[in-house]
Amino acid sequence: MNYLKAFLLLVASAAILSAAESLAQKASKQRLEPIPADRQALFSYINDENDPITDDKVELGKKLYFDPRISKSGIISCNTCHNLALGGVDGVETSIGHLWTMNPNYLNAPTVYNSVFNKVQLWDGRSSHLEIQAQAPIQSEAEMAASSELVVARIVSIPEYVADFKKAYGNDVNITFEKIAGVIGVFERTLITPSPYDDFLNGDEKALSKAQKEGFEVFLKKGCAKCHYSIALGGTMQPFQVAAKYKFIELGDFRGDKYGMVKTPTLRNVAETAPYFHNGQIWSLKDAIKEMGSVQLGIKISDKEADKMVEFMHSLTGRKPTITYPILPPSTNKTPKPDMN
Amino acid sequence: MNYLKAFLLLVASAAILSAAESLAQKASKQRLEPIPADRQALFSYINDENDPITDDKVELGKKLYFDPRISKSGIISCNTCHNLALGGVDGVETSIGHLWTMNPNYLNAPTVYNSVFNKVQLWDGRSSHLEIQAQAPIQSEAEMAASSELVVARIVSIPEYVADFKKAYGNDVNITFEKIAGVIGVFERTLITPSPYDDFLNGDEKALSKAQKEGFEVFLKKGCAKCHYSIALGGTMQPFQVAAKYKFIELGDFRGDKYGMVKTPTLRNVAETAPYFHNGQIWSLKDAIKEMGSVQLGIKISDKEADKMVEFMHSLTGRKPTITYPILPPSTNKTPKPDMN
Repeated sequence: MNYLKAFLLLVASAAILSAAESLAQKASKQRLEPIPADRQALFSYINDENDPITDDKVELGKKLYFDPRISKSGIISCNTCHNLALGGVDGVETSIGHLWTMNPNYLNAPTVYNSVFNKVQLWDGRSSHLEIQAQAPIQSEAEMAASSELVVARIVSIPEYVADFKKAYGNDVNITFEKIAGVIGVFERTLITPSPYDDFLNGDEKALSKAQKEGFEVFLKKGCAKCHYSIALGGTMQPFQVAAKYKFIELGDFRGDKYGMVKTPTLRNVAETAPYFHNGQIWSLKDAIKEMGSVQLGIKISDKEADKMVEFMHSLTGRKPTITYPILPPSTNKTPKPDMN
Repeated sequence: MNYLKAFLLLVASAAILSAAESLAQKASKQRLEPIPADRQALFSYINDENDPITDDKVELGKKLYFDPRISKSGIISCNTCHNLALGGVDGVETSIGHLWTMNPNYLNAPTVYNSVFNKVQLWDGRSSHLEIQAQAPIQSEAEMAASSELVVARIVSIPEYVADFKKAYGNDVNITFEKIAGVIGVFERTLITPSPYDDFLNGDEKALSKAQKEGFEVFLKKGCAKCHYSIALGGTMQPFQVAAKYKFIELGDFRGDKYGMVKTPTLRNVAETAPYFHNGQIWSLKDAIKEMGSVQLGIKISDKEADKMVEFMHSLTGRKPTITYPILPPSTNKTPKPDMN
């Protein structure tokens, strides 16, 4: 075999390989990753060595996640705005907090589901960790409006909670505000929703319908995965309004971090988390897709293409973990009273 | 044996019997009843022939109970004020509704647990049925503030809910507001919490501690069961302020029904449902007991007696049903939007 023949063979093989490149392979090249199907791999991903997941911590974190007494008024919990029954969001444009206050930046609540896969937390990405993120809304005047001292005082006044912390962190645990937010973060790490999309990337060809596969092709071809990549299909800081102004940019004064970068929202469960964008101004997933085409990619996405991508995005609706609604320990005479003002 | 002898024997036997009358017998004489331990008896009690309990109805009712979209804003659910994690209440003096509105009569939210055993619902007893009661807070401007039309429009816009109603009530079901509130009521009927108190009345002598039995004796002796009787230990209309004015009567303008009668709150789970009374002005169970002594019975209950009754009332804290937190079907493009104003 001479060199020419060998060369031609090589070219031909490459062409065949390229033509035969599977959708899953293309996705992988664009840095899309499934939630690890292997429990060990998943656990090593979500289990932070600084505060490893244990059953006792998850159970305690779950209680605190659902407990409205960590807010000033005693009636707003994490779950109020990140409702596990509703795709991990509240389904309104901007969240309503203490005294019926709208978020001053008119920010929309992102889903808590799969937030462990975000590289950064909060719209401006200022928290790298769920354990730290959880401190923010509790203390925000427009959200739960509680001081860290109040939260600690409420929790340590309830003997069952003190016992729970000892069980989770040992008898010499210091129940600080950071610890309380931290264990909520541990619970949040477990809120993972594997979906047909993951099954497909993990090798199950039949997990996606024909229409969904077509939509996935469009998604990859248009370049959506430039920002919506990794396990989260989002969760990293990206420039916003790259090609054009966002249609509703005037509502609220949020313009990203100091570089104008914005945390790309995860696309997991996106069919359940309307309304869309940081100020929740677009309710239709199809409209949201088209808006992103013009704002970020500088392209026009046709109705037909958008419809296909909507089909694909339904494959990102995941199987939610089963949550037993907690029974919370009662307050005592020492528990600081709700403050409605 | 002559007549005299027989008579004396009879007198003696009666005295012995009377002395030996058990606490459970005394309770029964004062119309106190346990939750039926026998499932069949319980089911016949809670199963309304007009709308019999089925698994499909309970599951649908549970979803709607937790669904904030039956409120105008889309963020207030039945569970917001009747929180199943917190003894079936919100733990605040008076509930906060739409636009952070306090109840205009400064009324405290009663527990939903065991409300099926109340003879009447609402503080003024104007609903006889949970299925009807559930209509009130949904429509109240100060609570969920939704019109019946809005609630129906939201539910019928969500295909999964329509399918759930068909599954529960048959394919020709008419999804009216009454039907929506009704199936919430069916779910509420299942929220029953058998307690050590019931175990005791059902024959388990060891279910109550010595201190609890002493407290129970005091409870019966003082006459508390004149109003707090039946399975609910409450739930019937009774005159209020029989012997003296309630300490905080000036707060709010609620004075009962047209006869000045007030629904006696159930004492079940009372250790978990502070603050107490229709306007939630007393936080300590001990203080509440003493207040009732003076207001209703015209007697002074000593600290020691009140402490014993508090002990007893802890035996009314029941075993809560296990609730799997529901995953709610997503809204569609046809679903009427949240209205925060």
